[in-house]
Amino acid sequence: MKYSRTYAEDVKVGDELPPLVKGPIQQIQLTRYAGASGDFNPIHQDHEFAKAAGMDDVFAHGMLSMGFVAQCVTDWAGPAAVRKLGVRFAAIVRLKDTVTCRGRVLGKSSKDDVHLVELEIWAENQRGEKVVTGKATVALPSRDG
Amino acid sequence: MKYSRTYAEDVKVGDELPPLVKGPIQQIQLTRYAGASGDFNPIHQDHEFAKAAGMDDVFAHGMLSMGFVAQCVTDWAGPAAVRKLGVRFAAIVRLKDTVTCRGRVLGKSSKDDVHLVELEIWAENQRGEKVVTGKATVALPSRDG
Repeated sequence: MKYSRTYAEDVKVGDELPPLVKGPIQQIQLTRYAGASGDFNPIHQDHEFAKAAGMDDVFAHGMLSMGFVAQCVTDWAGPAAVRKLGVRFAAIVRLKDTVTCRGRVLGKSSKDDVHLVELEIWAENQRGEKVVTGKATVALPSRDG
Repeated sequence: MKYSRTYAEDVKVGDELPPLVKGPIQQIQLTRYAGASGDFNPIHQDHEFAKAAGMDDVFAHGMLSMGFVAQCVTDWAGPAAVRKLGVRFAAIVRLKDTVTCRGRVLGKSSKDDVHLVELEIWAENQRGEKVVTGKATVALPSRDG
């Protein structure tokens, strides 16, 4: 049984990954993320605390946005496929924002029966502003087994 | 009010971040992470499914390990400080593993009153095997304000 449905042979440079849409972001999701991650920083939970820290309101954990982008990749390549993932945090994700995660194939290489695909990945909000940009490397199975 | 307690002036190359210990990893944490992230892939939840996919047992979402490493960084630098974060997934995190996240200052630079610190970051399991390796860039405040 394979846990990837994407094969190296079927991928070409320029291919786009199916977009993954997350949102609108709600407070309860930030609360759940705190519970799951153990990151209970009040700047993601407490409106008054966030205001006192100079923000308009609470905002999403950067790792939540990064997780969305990673899920866009793993939905396409399979959960065990991701070898590398790197992102730059370009803008804050706020409550009620809707985040769309996207990816595009930048390159392919094969060595010793390992088929690597390099991806450009990013997430943008409902205003088309990029909130996360980065790259990922995934290992894809071959149809030859 | 500042949400970072680490100032650029106080950081020097070679400094180590306070380690962050997570674990032993329990199934309920993977279940919570699924709920928070929306990644319900059964390979992280269902023992029988994981066995059928060729794994010994369920294993942690890579993004959970990455989140641990990120939390090690944000505990030190503040949640809004992280500009870039990139990791390589070196080994799978299994149930009952304990993951220790660490970081070390690789370099510092300042430009236009922005003080950037580059970090080497990694996480290792209880056998000392690295499960995640990577780099992060954080922006730190100056004591001058």
